[in-house]
Amino acid sequence: MLENCLKKLRENGALVHNITNYVTVNDCANITIAIGASPIMADEIKEVADIQTICGGLNINMGTLNDRVVESMLVAGKIANDLNHPVAFDPVGFAASAYRTESALRLIDNIQFSVIKGNISEIKSIATGSKKSFGVDACSDDMVSDSTLKSVVEFARKLSKSTCAIIVITGEIDIVSSEDKTIIIRNGDSMMSNITGSGCMLSSLIASFITANPEDIFESTAAAVVCMGIAGEKAAKKVKDNNLGNTSFRTYLIDEISKIDARDIKEKGKYERF
Amino acid sequence: MLENCLKKLRENGALVHNITNYVTVNDCANITIAIGASPIMADEIKEVADIQTICGGLNINMGTLNDRVVESMLVAGKIANDLNHPVAFDPVGFAASAYRTESALRLIDNIQFSVIKGNISEIKSIATGSKKSFGVDACSDDMVSDSTLKSVVEFARKLSKSTCAIIVITGEIDIVSSEDKTIIIRNGDSMMSNITGSGCMLSSLIASFITANPEDIFESTAAAVVCMGIAGEKAAKKVKDNNLGNTSFRTYLIDEISKIDARDIKEKGKYERF
Amino acid sequence: MLENCLKKLRENGALVHNITNYVTVNDCANITIAIGASPIMADEIKEVADIQTICGGLNINMGTLNDRVVESMLVAGKIANDLNHPVAFDPVGFAASAYRTESALRLIDNIQFSVIKGNISEIKSIATGSKKSFGVDACSDDMVSDSTLKSVVEFARKLSKSTCAIIVITGEIDIVSSEDKTIIIRNGDSMMSNITGSGCMLSSLIASFITANPEDIFESTAAAVVCMGIAGEKAAKKVKDNNLGNTSFRTYLIDEISKIDARDIKEKGKYERF
Repeated sequence: MLENCLKKLRENGALVHNITNYVTVNDCANITIAIGASPIMADEIKEVADIQTICGGLNINMGTLNDRVVESMLVAGKIANDLNHPVAFDPVGFAASAYRTESALRLIDNIQFSVIKGNISEIKSIATGSKKSFGVDACSDDMVSDSTLKSVVEFARKLSKSTCAIIVITGEIDIVSSEDKTIIIRNGDSMMSNITGSGCMLSSLIASFITANPEDIFESTAAAVVCMGIAGEKAAKKVKDNNLGNTSFRTYLIDEISKIDARDIKEKGKYERF
Repeated sequence: MLENCLKKLRENGALVHNITNYVTVNDCANITIAIGASPIMADEIKEVADIQTICGGLNINMGTLNDRVVESMLVAGKIANDLNHPVAFDPVGFAASAYRTESALRLIDNIQFSVIKGNISEIKSIATGSKKSFGVDACSDDMVSDSTLKSVVEFARKLSKSTCAIIVITGEIDIVSSEDKTIIIRNGDSMMSNITGSGCMLSSLIASFITANPEDIFESTAAAVVCMGIAGEKAAKKVKDNNLGNTSFRTYLIDEISKIDARDIKEKGKYERF
Repeated sequence: MLENCLKKLRENGALVHNITNYVTVNDCANITIAIGASPIMADEIKEVADIQTICGGLNINMGTLNDRVVESMLVAGKIANDLNHPVAFDPVGFAASAYRTESALRLIDNIQFSVIKGNISEIKSIATGSKKSFGVDACSDDMVSDSTLKSVVEFARKLSKSTCAIIVITGEIDIVSSEDKTIIIRNGDSMMSNITGSGCMLSSLIASFITANPEDIFESTAAAVVCMGIAGEKAAKKVKDNNLGNTSFRTYLIDEISKIDARDIKEKGKYERF
């Protein structure tokens, strides 16, 4: 049950190592704290093994990439795998540059991710662009809508099977899928795309949930996505009611995560098992 | 007309590559989205050419400089020039260190900037400090006020001619000048200097406007400066009315940019052609 | 008198060089401005000597550490010492990795800090982990409470004597100690630990105060800690009154620093000389 994943996170906390970009790192840290976990941001190759060892999970986000940090991601990811720590991966802008594509594929080839999260175009690029090639046919759909849902879910399940990772595809409808189970989530607000960092914050939230619930990566990932969507709805309402703008939305979004509880998931969660 | 520059940006969007500092990068990204453009922050030398190629413009801000990033700025700037993409330059703290001065001059010597923006002391230092030397007499004025306006405008026009860039001098009065046209802007609020990043955000705003309006760099730069000033006035009023402080001002400043429209420019813009 | 330290800072300003982490750097800059000082964030080794020379003080925070920046910290710190500029040190996560411990000890061995600030576990680790070893017995207490206060104060005084730095130990009760004088501070709110950066912002605040009051490092450090605590109380009240969350708290915390004055210290400061 998704509610239990949140309860467990709130009760036990989770120490999460984030190697992320310098654009949204502050928001990622604050949302991690907001949900009840504790973030450590550390990307120096000489310390990432030590840091990962004291943490319970890892979040790798390639929003701003450079050679120094890619090597640190590789080291941290391998240690996390050795320690059986959950690892979330956000291949931000996977296809935006050859360097980004190659780096992401190096990470995928060398680290067993627990969750890979992206929008439909990032996830599709991973499926087709990987040297591993995954045996997955390209998904021909460019949006997740009710009419394309069935084929996107099928695609997500195949990619989950070949990557051994839970696949999260974000959009108007969010999809969380293992190779044989899928949850479709209809929470959220269009205002989430009016700020930088909604996606990065979701990755940090997923990492927090799976670190606290390593025994159920699928359910806890879905719980993170649902919480983010509900917080987005609440924050958007506050912004509209008070005639504010996008940066107030950012503040309220994290605020709402700091206040969310199991009852919110129960009463406001719009998700179905597919 | 300045209003049209905003309309075109809101309608068509603009994908803007920012190589900027790690202090205010989040605000720069959020203000870029707020005005209707899309930011990509990327500074790894291996990817800046690819990134610039998929974007329509470039913003180079030297708020926090290091050797790795300076080389990336050079590569990105040259590609932008090759592709005829507009390039904005913010030589933050130009004279604060020899390294900063030298780096800025390397950038100026190697990249054709569309817009160079700074306060009077930064812009004066560029005029006198450049190896190119520009043939511009030093401007003896240290503030832009009504009494010094004429000589500062003359200085800005000469510098615009020798750099082939639109020159923006910010202060109590803002000046946007080509070699033969100048717009004087009296919007803004003193509270804008009570936060970090007002200047950086203006650079990102300028980059957004000129990327969406490459056919009229002068007018679209002025539109960006007017919008920033109006948003500053509105945000300051809200902060004073509610007895808040400087960081609420930052939030409301970007909020107001996300809500600004052509009517605001028409009704609240305080600018004159000089 | 603590009030006078704030008055002097507000009247004269202070230009403070910060070498800090990329997670909370924006908040550190904004709180520095909020209290009346001016921040320069610069960490390139080729410019830190120039930058430190034009500033009046230095803040070194190791929140996110890497080899490039550690070398810059060393250079900046030595120049600051040569120029008799006050230097604050925040050994964030001192014991979290061997690299972090070694780097912090290199900094302590090579730079004469004016103030070293941390929580009880960071400060204890410094006392026991330093190669210099300081001749200080480990403090056996893991929390600062009324029952442990006497022994923690004794420990802080010894460490202050051996490091020749004012020691700040933060917690529910904050301690500011020289080798023979101690101020105990009971301001603050538990909400301060619900955001990232409370500690980093306090370091930047301390650096601002000591840069403006180099003739009295002890009193001005205490003034910074008292101001932070009062601002935390006011911000927490606003967040609770309006049913907001942790990121609104961050905004209001800095807001309150931008509004704090000597009367606040007089009326709301809860501190005693020990």
